[in-house]
Order: sequence, then C-alpha cells, then structure tokens
Amino acid sequence: MDKILLLNGPNLNLLGTREPGVYGKGTLGDIETTLRTMVEGNGWAFDSFQSNHEGELIDRIHEAIGQDVGIIFNPGAYTHTSIALRDAIAGANLPVIEVHISNVHKREEFRHTSLLAPVCYGQIVGLGSFGYKLAAQTFLEQF
Amino acid sequence: MDKILLLNGPNLNLLGTREPGVYGKGTLGDIETTLRTMVEGNGWAFDSFQSNHEGELIDRIHEAIGQDVGIIFNPGAYTHTSIALRDAIAGANLPVIEVHISNVHKREEFRHTSLLAPVCYGQIVGLGSFGYKLAAQTFLEQF
Amino acid sequence: MDKILLLNGPNLNLLGTREPGVYGKGTLGDIETTLRTMVEGNGWAFDSFQSNHEGELIDRIHEAIGQDVGIIFNPGAYTHTSIALRDAIAGANLPVIEVHISNVHKREEFRHTSLLAPVCYGQIVGLGSFGYKLAAQTFLEQF
Amino acid sequence: MDKILLLNGPNLNLLGTREPGVYGKGTLGDIETTLRTMVEGNGWAFDSFQSNHEGELIDRIHEAIGQDVGIIFNPGAYTHTSIALRDAIAGANLPVIEVHISNVHKREEFRHTSLLAPVCYGQIVGLGSFGYKLAAQTFLEQF
Amino acid sequence: MDKILLLNGPNLNLLGTREPGVYGKGTLGDIETTLRTMVEGNGWAFDSFQSNHEGELIDRIHEAIGQDVGIIFNPGAYTHTSIALRDAIAGANLPVIEVHISNVHKREEFRHTSLLAPVCYGQIVGLGSFGYKLAAQTFLEQF
Amino acid sequence: MDKILLLNGPNLNLLGTREPGVYGKGTLGDIETTLRTMVEGNGWAFDSFQSNHEGELIDRIHEAIGQDVGIIFNPGAYTHTSIALRDAIAGANLPVIEVHISNVHKREEFRHTSLLAPVCYGQIVGLGSFGYKLAAQTFLEQF
Amino acid sequence: MDKILLLNGPNLNLLGTREPGVYGKGTLGDIETTLRTMVEGNGWAFDSFQSNHEGELIDRIHEAIGQDVGIIFNPGAYTHTSIALRDAIAGANLPVIEVHISNVHKREEFRHTSLLAPVCYGQIVGLGSFGYKLAAQTFLEQF
Amino acid sequence: MDKILLLNGPNLNLLGTREPGVYGKGTLGDIETTLRTMVEGNGWAFDSFQSNHEGELIDRIHEAIGQDVGIIFNPGAYTHTSIALRDAIAGANLPVIEVHISNVHKREEFRHTSLLAPVCYGQIVGLGSFGYKLAAQTFLEQF
Amino acid sequence: MDKILLLNGPNLNLLGTREPGVYGKGTLGDIETTLRTMVEGNGWAFDSFQSNHEGELIDRIHEAIGQDVGIIFNPGAYTHTSIALRDAIAGANLPVIEVHISNVHKREEFRHTSLLAPVCYGQIVGLGSFGYKLAAQTFLEQF
Amino acid sequence: MDKILLLNGPNLNLLGTREPGVYGKGTLGDIETTLRTMVEGNGWAFDSFQSNHEGELIDRIHEAIGQDVGIIFNPGAYTHTSIALRDAIAGANLPVIEVHISNVHKREEFRHTSLLAPVCYGQIVGLGSFGYKLAAQTFLEQF
Amino acid sequence: MDKILLLNGPNLNLLGTREPGVYGKGTLGDIETTLRTMVEGNGWAFDSFQSNHEGELIDRIHEAIGQDVGIIFNPGAYTHTSIALRDAIAGANLPVIEVHISNVHKREEFRHTSLLAPVCYGQIVGLGSFGYKLAAQTFLEQF
Amino acid sequence: MDKILLLNGPNLNLLGTREPGVYGKGTLGDIETTLRTMVEGNGWAFDSFQSNHEGELIDRIHEAIGQDVGIIFNPGAYTHTSIALRDAIAGANLPVIEVHISNVHKREEFRHTSLLAPVCYGQIVGLGSFGYKLAAQTFLEQF
Repeated sequence: MDKILLLNGPNLNLLGTREPGVYGKGTLGDIETTLRTMVEGNGWAFDSFQSNHEGELIDRIHEAIGQDVGIIFNPGAYTHTSIALRDAIAGANLPVIEVHISNVHKREEFRHTSLLAPVCYGQIVGLGSFGYKLAAQTFLEQF
Repeated sequence: MDKILLLNGPNLNLLGTREPGVYGKGTLGDIETTLRTMVEGNGWAFDSFQSNHEGELIDRIHEAIGQDVGIIFNPGAYTHTSIALRDAIAGANLPVIEVHISNVHKREEFRHTSLLAPVCYGQIVGLGSFGYKLAAQTFLEQF
Repeated sequence: MDKILLLNGPNLNLLGTREPGVYGKGTLGDIETTLRTMVEGNGWAFDSFQSNHEGELIDRIHEAIGQDVGIIFNPGAYTHTSIALRDAIAGANLPVIEVHISNVHKREEFRHTSLLAPVCYGQIVGLGSFGYKLAAQTFLEQF
Repeated sequence: MDKILLLNGPNLNLLGTREPGVYGKGTLGDIETTLRTMVEGNGWAFDSFQSNHEGELIDRIHEAIGQDVGIIFNPGAYTHTSIALRDAIAGANLPVIEVHISNVHKREEFRHTSLLAPVCYGQIVGLGSFGYKLAAQTFLEQF
Repeated sequence: MDKILLLNGPNLNLLGTREPGVYGKGTLGDIETTLRTMVEGNGWAFDSFQSNHEGELIDRIHEAIGQDVGIIFNPGAYTHTSIALRDAIAGANLPVIEVHISNVHKREEFRHTSLLAPVCYGQIVGLGSFGYKLAAQTFLEQF
Repeated sequence: MDKILLLNGPNLNLLGTREPGVYGKGTLGDIETTLRTMVEGNGWAFDSFQSNHEGELIDRIHEAIGQDVGIIFNPGAYTHTSIALRDAIAGANLPVIEVHISNVHKREEFRHTSLLAPVCYGQIVGLGSFGYKLAAQTFLEQF
Repeated sequence: MDKILLLNGPNLNLLGTREPGVYGKGTLGDIETTLRTMVEGNGWAFDSFQSNHEGELIDRIHEAIGQDVGIIFNPGAYTHTSIALRDAIAGANLPVIEVHISNVHKREEFRHTSLLAPVCYGQIVGLGSFGYKLAAQTFLEQF
Repeated sequence: MDKILLLNGPNLNLLGTREPGVYGKGTLGDIETTLRTMVEGNGWAFDSFQSNHEGELIDRIHEAIGQDVGIIFNPGAYTHTSIALRDAIAGANLPVIEVHISNVHKREEFRHTSLLAPVCYGQIVGLGSFGYKLAAQTFLEQF
Repeated sequence: MDKILLLNGPNLNLLGTREPGVYGKGTLGDIETTLRTMVEGNGWAFDSFQSNHEGELIDRIHEAIGQDVGIIFNPGAYTHTSIALRDAIAGANLPVIEVHISNVHKREEFRHTSLLAPVCYGQIVGLGSFGYKLAAQTFLEQF
Repeated sequence: MDKILLLNGPNLNLLGTREPGVYGKGTLGDIETTLRTMVEGNGWAFDSFQSNHEGELIDRIHEAIGQDVGIIFNPGAYTHTSIALRDAIAGANLPVIEVHISNVHKREEFRHTSLLAPVCYGQIVGLGSFGYKLAAQTFLEQF
Repeated sequence: MDKILLLNGPNLNLLGTREPGVYGKGTLGDIETTLRTMVEGNGWAFDSFQSNHEGELIDRIHEAIGQDVGIIFNPGAYTHTSIALRDAIAGANLPVIEVHISNVHKREEFRHTSLLAPVCYGQIVGLGSFGYKLAAQTFLEQF
Repeated sequence: MDKILLLNGPNLNLLGTREPGVYGKGTLGDIETTLRTMVEGNGWAFDSFQSNHEGELIDRIHEAIGQDVGIIFNPGAYTHTSIALRDAIAGANLPVIEVHISNVHKREEFRHTSLLAPVCYGQIVGLGSFGYKLAAQTFLEQF
C-alpha cells in the first residue's frame, strides 16, 4: 500500500502555543489528524514523526527508503543550517515536499535560504497549515 | 461575484515549447483552461493575463484593486529583478500567491532570490503546472 | 519658452491610495496641479507624465532633449534597478532632480541605493510632496 | 531564405548624438544601412528592430523563433539587468551574438557583468560599430 | 519664538577656499547671512554653529533639545562614519534635514552611504548652497 | 516556588580539562554547586542540565516553559550555528541570559556572532565562571 | 586605595530622557550614585566621567593608567566605530568591562559588532543599568 | 595496547547504496572489515562508530580521550557546519585525520570549506575508501 | 611594413588535443597558417608567439613596442590572474584585441572576469578560432 | 622660512610606554627632538603637535594651510576611520607623508586599509621611528 | 613501463631550511630518494621535477601527457593563484594527487582555497613528507 | 662585506618610457647608478636584478640567502598576486623593504592590497625613485 510520511522538525511540537501570531493556533496533533483522514480516505497509509533532533530526522528519512511514496517535510530551523538533512534527502532518492507554515520570506534574512530546497521536489510556503494538505494532495494526485 | 486573476510574466507564453525539460509540455492555454473550469465550477469568476512587459503587469495588478479576491502570479524572470512589481503588489493590498513551475532552487543562483516573496501571501514552487491548481484551491477554500 | 517636465515612475499613479502612511494622502493629480500653477505662474511651461513602463519613461526623456530646461523625476522603484534610465538621463544631458516622497533611507536596504543619482543634478528625499515644489523652485531660480 | 535580425536595446536610438566620445558619431540608421547592404549582398534577408522597452525586445526575440538564422544583439543597459531577456534568448534557442560598441570593461563596474552572455553564442566588445559587421560576417560565413 | 539651527560639520569652515570646483565659491559666512536674513525675515530666530569636532556637534544637538523647531545639518564627512551623531539626532527627537552641497553620489563610493539619513527627516543633495535655503523653507512652511 | 535552570551546551562537560588556558580549571560540577548554593540560599529552586545534543537542549528548553523563571544558558558552539535553539528560546518566551566563560571576541571570527543573542534577555561574556553567578544574581534580584 | 573608574560615552548624558523605551528611565546621575555607594561601601575609591568627545574619552583612559584597578565602560556608539579607543584600552593595559544597557543584538546590524570587545576583559549586555552594578561587583570580588 | 577509532558521520551508513556514482559501491561494513584486519594485524586495537547525530559523535570523541592514539574521521556533512565537533576535537587533544571519500572540491561550493580541518592533524580527500587505509597507515607508521 | 603579432598564452599549445569539446579540433599551427595567409595577403607582416610563461609573454609584448600595429592576444588563464600582463599592455601603449575561443561566460565564475580587458582595445569571445580572423580583420581594415 | 609640521594622532603620546614590543621604546619627545635638530639644522622651521582628538587634528591641518611646506603625519587609529581627516588633507592641498612606526600590514585586518593614503603624497611604514626621519628628509631634499 | 612524476612548485627547493617549524627538516632530495626507492622497488619508473617558475611547471605537465600514469604534485603557493596550472592539469587529463606537507587549513585564510583541487584526483594535506609516500602508494595500488 | 640587493619586478625595465606621468622620467639604469654610488660609497657591495618572470625573482631571492644584508624590492604587479614571492621572502628570512614609485593607493582598487607587505620589514610608497634611496639608507644606517 502506498504510504506518505509527514515529518516535522524542531519546535513544531509547540505549534498552537509558540508565537501563534506567526504560526497559527492549530496544534501539530490537529494537522496530523487532518492529514491522516485525508490520506487514508484515499486508501493510502500515513505516518507522522516529529523531532527536535537533527539526527533522529535523518534516521527517519533513512527508514523511509523503499517504504514511502514521498515525504511532506517541515524542517523548521534545520531548513537553513542542515547539510546533513540535505544529504539524507539526496541519498534517500524520494520526492520530498518542503512545507513552511509562515511566509519565511517576510521574516529574518537567514530564513530566506533553504539548504534543502535544491534536493526537494518542491516547496509550499506561507499558506498556513493548509500547505500540508496541498502537499498531501500533490502526492495523492500526481504520484 | 468573487474573481481570481491568473497572471503570467515574461516568456511564459512560450510554455510547452520553451525548454520543455524544465517547464513541461503543457501550454499556457492548457493551464488557463484547467483553471477556468475549476474556478468557474466553484461559482467564481476567472481572468487571465500574460505579458512580457513589466509595465503591463503592473498596470494589470492596479486594475485588480477592488476587483479580485486574489492573484495567482508566476512572475517569471521579473521575480528576481522587479522592485516595481513588488511595490505594485504591496500597493494593491491583495493576496498574491507566487507560483513557479520548476524548482527554482535547483537552478542558477540568481533564481533563488525572490524580490516579490516578502509581499506575497505565499509561494508554491516546483510542482509543475499542478502548482497553479493548488494556488486556485487555496483561494477557493481559504478566502 | 522655458519648460519643466514632471516625470513620475511606477506605482505613483496610486498616490493617495497606496500605503498612505508612507506616501501621504495627496494624489498625483494634486501634485500636478500645484506644480503647474507654480511653474506657469513664473511664466514657464509645464508638462507632466507618469508611466509604469520603464520603456515609456525612457522614450519620454528622449523627447525632452532640446525641449525642456530640466526634469523633476520621481523614478519610484526604477531608482534601484534601471541602468537604462540612467543611460537615458546621461544621454539626454539635461539636469534632472530626483525626488522621493518618503525618506527611502528609513526603509528596506535595497531602497538606499540609487542607480540614477550619479547622473542626476541632485536629490530631494523624504520631504513629502513638498519636495516636488522645491525641485521646481530650484529650476525656476537657479537655471 | 536565411535571415539575420539586428536587435538594439535602450538608448541606442540616440547613437550619434548620445555621448559621442563613448559611442562614436555614426547613427543607428548608418549601421542598419551598412549591415543591410552587406547581408543582402550575400543573398540573405535582413531585419532590424530597436526599442527602449524590455518587453518589446522579448516579444521580438519570440517572433524570431523559427524565422531567423541568428540575432545580432546590442542589449544596451539591459545587458546588466534583464534576466527576462536572458530567458527569452535561452527559450528561443537561436544563436545570438552580443555586441557592445564601447569597451564596457573600461567603464563603470556594473557594466562588466552581462546576464545575457552565458546564453549567447559569443560577444564582440569595444570595436565600435565595426563590431556589428563582424557579427554579421560570423553568421554569413559560419552558419 | 520658533528657532532654526544651522549646523555644519568638519571642513565646512573652508567653504569657498577648499576644492571650489566641488563645493562652490561662497563661504560659510555667506550662507549664514543668507539664511539668517531669510529666517529672521519670517519672524523666526536663527542660530548657526560649525565645528570640526564630532563631540562638539553632539553637544550642540543636545542643546537644541526643547529649543529649536528643527536643524539644517551638513554633517560633512561625519555623514559616513558617525553613529554617535546618529544617536544624538535620534535622542534629540527633532526634525533634521541633511544637506550636502555637492552631489555625493557622483563621488567616491564611501560617500554614497549616510549613517544619519535613516534618523533624519529628509535629505537635500547636490543643489549647491541653494540646498540650505530649501531646507530652511521647508521648516518655515511645513512646521 | 521560583526556579532557575542552568543549561550548558556541547563540550562544557569537559570544563576543567579542556583547554584550561581558555576556560579555566573549575569543573562544571563546581559551577553547579556554587550556583545551587546561591540560588537555594535565596529560597528559589535550581536545576541544571548539560548536553552535547542540540535536540536535547531544545527538549529541555521546552520543558522549562511554565516551570522556570529564567534560564542561564551557555550554548557553547551552538551559539554560532543553531537557529533551532534560537527558535526554541523565542518559542519558550522565557528570559534567557547567555553566558560565555571566555571572551569570545578575542577568539576566531566565527565566535563573534551569536544567533541566540537577539532572542535572549542579555549576555555576560568573558568573566570566567563568575559570569554564571552574575546571571543568577540578575534573576534573583531583578525578576 | 583601589579605585574604579566609570566611563560613559556619547549620548549617555541623555539617559532617562533619550528613548526611554530602549534605555530605561534612570538618569546617569542615578547610576553614578548607586555605583559610588556600592564601591565606596567596599572601601574602594570611585570616579566617573562622561563625554561625547572620543578624544576626551581617550585622554581619560590614559589618565587611568597606574591609577585605577579597572574601568567600567559604556562606550555608546563609539563601540562600533572607534579604533582609537581600542588602542587606548590596549595601551592602558587595564581590565575594562564593556557594558551596554540595551541588548544591542536586538537592534540594528551595525550595533552587533564591537571594535573594543577584543581588548576588553569582558562584556555585560542588555541587563539594563543593573549591568553596571555587576561590572563593579566583578572588580570588587575578582580583582 | 594502542587503539585507533574509526568515526563516521551522517549518512555514511548508506555507503554502497547512496549515490554510488559519487561514493562508490563498498559498504561501511566493508570498510570496517578492511581496517580492522589491517589495524589488528599490526597488533593495535580497533574500534568503529557511526552516527547521524552530531551529539553522539561529540560524546564518542570525548570517550576517546586518554583511550585512543588517534581518530580516523569522516564527518560527512558536519564537516561544513559543526563548530561543536571542532571544539570536541580541539578539547580532546587527539590527532584526527579527516577523510572524505569523494573529492569534495569538485562538488558544491559549501563542501569546499571544512570547519574541522584547522584542528585536525591532516586531511585525505577524494581517494575513495582507500583514503581510510592511508589514514590508518599514517597512525600505524607515524605515531 | 605594418606588422601584426599573434600572441597565445598558457596551454594554447595544446589546442586540438586539450578538451576539444570546449576548444575545437584545430591546432594552434592551423590558426597561425590561416592568419599568416590572411595578413600577408594584405601586404602586412605577421608574427606569432606562444608561451606558458607569464614572464615570456610580458617580454614579447615589450618587444612589440614600436614594432607592431597591434596584438591579437589570447591570454588563456592569465586573463584572470595577471596584473603584470595588464601593466605590460598599458605600458606598451599598443591596441590589443583579446580573443577567447570558447564563450568564457558559460564556464566557471572565475573565467567571467578579465583583468586585461580594461586596457585592451576590445574583446572577441566565443566565436571559436574564427575570432582570431575577425581580430586580424579589425586591424587590417580599421588601423 | 620653510616649515615642516610633525603631526601625531591618538595614543602616540604613549610612545615608549604603550606596547613597546610593537612601537619601540623611544618616546614622542625623543622623536620630536631628533626631527627638530635635523630640520632646523637644515635651516627650516619645525613644529610639532599631538592630539587624541580628531577635531583638533583637523583644526591643526587647517592652520597649516599657507604656512607649512609639508606635514609628516602619523594618524594612528584615525588612519582607518577618519574621512574627516582625509577631507582636511585634500582641502589643505599640502603634501602629507603618512608614517606608521609598526608594519601595519602584519597586524589586524582593519589596519591594512588607510582612508588617508589616497590623498597623501606617500607612505613610510614599518621602519620604526626612523621613518619620521626619512619623511623629513624627503621634504628637505625634494621640496 | 608505468611511470610516476613527482612535481614540486615554488620554494620547495628550500625544504629542510625554510621555516622548518612548518615544513619539517627533510630536504627535497630526501623525499625524492625515498619515493624513487619505493616506486622503482615496485617496478615502475620515477621522475622528479621542481621549479619556481609557473611556466616550467606547465611545460612539465604537458610533457607528462601520454608518458606518466599519474602525478604527485605539491604546487606550493601556486595552489592558490594559478588557473594556468589548473588548465594544464585539466588539459593533460592525468590523475594528479595534490600534496601539502603542512596542514594549510591551520594557516592564513588565503591558503585554504585550492584552485587546483577541483581538477585533481584527490588531496593529501598536513601529513608531512609522509603524504608524498601515501600518494605514491595510491598510484601503485589503485592504478 | 655587507651587500644590498636591488630587485625590480615586471615592467620596471620600461621605467622612463612607460606611463611617465605615473612613474617619472628616470630609467631603471639611472636608479641603479644612483644607488650603487650611494651604497658603495658607504663601503658596502651592491647588486641589482630586474625580471618580468615571477620564477626568476624567486630564484634570485633564494640566491640572496646568506649573501645579502637586505633587499630593496619593487615587486611591480606581483605585489598584488604572488603568494610564491611572499613565501620566498618568508623563507629567505631576510629584511625586505617594499618600494613603490607611485602612490598605489591613488590608483585602482586592486593595487591597494600587497600580498608581500606582511612578510616585509617595511614599505616606502609614492615618493618616486627617491624611495629607493631611503630604503638603501635604512639598511645602511639601521642594520
């Protein structure tokens, strides 16, 4: 059965509580529920993982090799600093859609550069938690 | 009646013929047809405009003020060079979703910076012409 | 008869509506009326042109050659991106006073650099629409 | 019949009058006449277009697709600022020879970089209006 | 009674003798006389101070707090190096119009950046000593 | 009961052994004892955590939310590379005092920039392990 | 008798009136009184000097040679521009603790770099006027 | 008994499967076997550790203090981003030979800089998995 | 008798064998024969020199002073690194046309900058060995 | 009578005591005596001035106009930061020889750039206090 | 018979005498003897060449084409400045192993970049003269 | 007998003919004669060498080891590009005084940086050919 992995990086466990003006009021649990319903409703399997540890995120991407059709990945701050995650994605050879809840281009200069984007399939930025749904829909309809 | 404007910048009239390895085989006409069907099927009005002229794109954004709910905008190369378009968007005070067919982050360095992104609502990058559909869907479901 | 040209670049047609906190509430029409009265009251001719098109602004500067004593020019965003306008000014060999309504040095970094300033006669910045009057006065009293 | 397009960008309509110390005393009309004679004398067709509008230059390059053997292009100031023209050239998939009348490397720093050069066939710089002839000769003898 | 302070920074005591090709032949005394006549003729008080000492300029700005309507300030070379003067202006919370006699944008690269501009009310550049008059006029008519 | 968290980042477990010329001879245990005595002597609770793992430090900051009055944090090398820790601090919305034992400004260029400083309450640098005491005192007396 | 010198740079005479949102409401006199009481209460001598003149601050540091145990120095804006003060500190060979009332790292980019820090003993930043007390305490307890 | 530690960083567990065109077909297990045979054949002990976690690599280096003669370290992507690993190596005061299987200088710009190299004993780059053998040989013959 | 010097820099002796995909299949001997025939056919003298030594190229330019009408110079890699050759050209006060066989602007970043171009008469780039002919023709027809 | 002015900037009053490893053991008084003897022995007048105040140095240069044949100037740290002194020298239109006792190019990066050098007659660097003598000799023999 | 070329660049003739703290006490002759013995002992031929002349090194690489299996090259300072040597290596199409005796990454910033590395087979850095042996061994065992 | 070496780099053989406005009218022979007379008049030996070849200059510096008291070196353009000469000077361990005839700081940006200065004893710049004499005098009187 086709499977999609939802992967969330550092501080995204705080969603709904951390800077709600920037990230909205929905929790990560809310997003997981919405996506699970949507993905499983299409007859695909769904998995979700969040970690604040760069290493655990790399480990989880490695596990996905040969298992998942694609990954919906909000790498949080590691977007801008982790070449190791970039190598993991390149090495996994899986389509990854990078999602950012806020429009990172409205924020600090250092958030404008993504080290991961060049090895991802695409990016959805600034559409709030709705962006996760669009990413899921891309996998369901285009893969 | 709510209306959405599809706006395409320089060289996008060549879609389907220009560097199909990068931009795909669908023409701009195909994209317009798909979006019109989708938007009008939701009971909204739809308009589309393409130009290679920075000035005409600015003029068209000005026209949209007070007329359109939002703009789906693929600014092509002006993404990286036009502060005038940025000012037009900021001045229009309308939500704009920036769409790029190819993953610009896989390409030349100068394509990694968007002067428009900080004044747009969000960005969809690298998902092919499917990205236009997701942008339309965002307006239809979230606005 | 001596003639002054008032030239306004992209988005300045929105004056009075676009970001009034930044640019004030007067319209471009108000400014034109004020300047026409002032210039014609001194027995000089007055002309005014606004365009969002870089090419049309260049064309208009070319027309001014041999016709106008000087140009009062608010180049808007093209201040920061247009070498073609710079070449037009240098080629026209006419005194140009660059006017900016807002204090551009209080705003985004990219607004701090003017590509046109080195070929202009001078600059008046941040004095609101009053700056246009001072530019006109400079031509009337100093040329 | 094989055809060559001569394309000239912003401010080149001023040739012969604008900064003659830099650009020489010949007019654009003189150059067109010289090239037409030379090209038609070789039994090829010849076309010439000048515009100060970036968008019109893009439009004209699009028209050339499937029509012309090659383009002799002096992009003027757009050399240094127009990614849209670069994309037009790359999309047209035609050999373009970039010509500059003056030696741009003797002038301001910003004139040392050409955004177009990487997608052109070659460059002829600093040889005055004679450079246009050499470009034409290259098409006539090498294509 | 409303009062305007004319403040001049380092080397401006040499006006009329120092590089007259750049700064003109009028002395600082000439400028003071012209402005005093103009300001007092409008029923306002006028004061003038010149120093080559950064610290004395700061001291003088502090004195102006609660005394002056505004300051006409030609900071000379301190324009480009003095954060202390910037802080003095910001701390004084008075409108300051920065005046430069020559068009600094035609000169060395380091003269293109003003550390003071972001905390000033506006700038008048390159209009010769006439710029001081326009600054005075701005205070007289707009404040 | 008010509680203070002492947080130490990578390699600070080596204190007293690692480069004693730079970091002094006291161990992390010594510092913990000193601070515990001081904090508990003021009737506050005290907690201490050290880790070489960026993720564990983030987890620990999250735990502190709603628990601690403030955090005394020596982020070690993560000072210069971790946007994830920065986001954790901003998300936790707790006052953090950044402490560095050595004067980082005397050392390599890359140690002069702190990614965390803009979201911290303040910084104490170069005062040896005494800096930890001053940070604790700040919380005890000022919060 | 051991003596401590409190040294304050440009604009710090405005403390309590200048941008109180940034610098707090206490005056420099308040800070001097607090520190004098504290230092003299420990049986040490205390001296205080403020100037807006870079040269006077250098002169005062020279005077301190062989007189003072250490200097508590808030160099204000000279922090970021004065190599002469840096040389004075290095030449005096006295421990200097650099104090900033506000967290300079939350402010403009140019305030993030201290030319003095590499020759100071340490830095206390962002702890308000309490930082001066901690600096005094460091001298009293550690020297 | 003298001991050598083989340390491998993120994604090197994928060796043999990840981008074999870049990294070769041998697995990490193959390399470990080869080195163990070689090192133990010389009468030395051998240990090997791989982790995707920066923190675990730091922990492992700390363990090596006082235990190992030297470390053969392929830090993978952490080469370019980890100051914490740099500090761990400097703090451990052990000779470390940095090994890269591929010639990193033929690859992306950001792979050309090693934060670790200045604190390592030396580097072997681009010689494939043979580089690990040469590093081991260096320890066996030179230490 | 008028004389033209053909000068070729480092590695151009390998023409026809070195990277023929980049530089074409013709040898340097072929180019010399073609140019000699062309130049001597016009009744001018012709000389040719190739060296891999920067110093020998400088010596040869010095010899040309007062002897040659102009120099056709392909400086190879010294284009990007030799200020000494630049000074030799400036000192010789002879017109030099810089020729590059390949379009250097399509290649590595460091090949985009020519230290020699500002002191040369002009540049012909990317037209293959045909570029040498055009340079010769320029001297024959324009000097 | 011809006169030479010896001018010394900030911290040079400490000569002989400040960092003698860098600046030598001779005092400024020693240098003044040596130069006075030498200059007066040649029948010229001699004057010497030292200040830590940028403004006083500017004032002193202004005084020299029309009085002195040339200035021997060690600007100390103002070498690297003072555009005001640069303007004073350019405005005075007197030959200035910049002297540095130590070889500034062996020291911190920021000491490698002189803002004054482009308007000075020449520079003598790193020859110790002997450099002052050579500067005096240059004026005595060459002017 | 297979042959290896040992190539040494500028100043390496001074080995053993020049800065022995950095480069060790062995002479170049010692290294040649060691390598010759090792290479010939494996039944291969060996050749060695040292020059301070960039041009001679290029000439020697050209000679190696079609003669040598590979080159062991310590380019000395030309590592950081010679694009001509880079082109020679790329044109020769031979495997080159770049060797540096000292760990260049511990030294001046400009020694951290190798212009040659991207066209070499690999690099051995900081292992003293032992690095030459490892390079030879690589050719003997891997080619 | 003590010996001084005069060393001149590329293009200095053209002295007196090359750009006399910049370098003066004296030839290199004139300078050699003047210095020989002066040096031998002091009972020291004198040697002089000029070359356009970087390698020959390096060779000559090597020869000077153990032979000469010091070198007077005008490295011409190699000042700005030759790390190999820098290494030669550092390796020779001889005092070198770098001389430039013109004030290089008045000229192109790239002439403002000397790669050699940090390993030289000192620099004399802009004093014309008189600078060579001062350098000789320094060796004669100070060594």
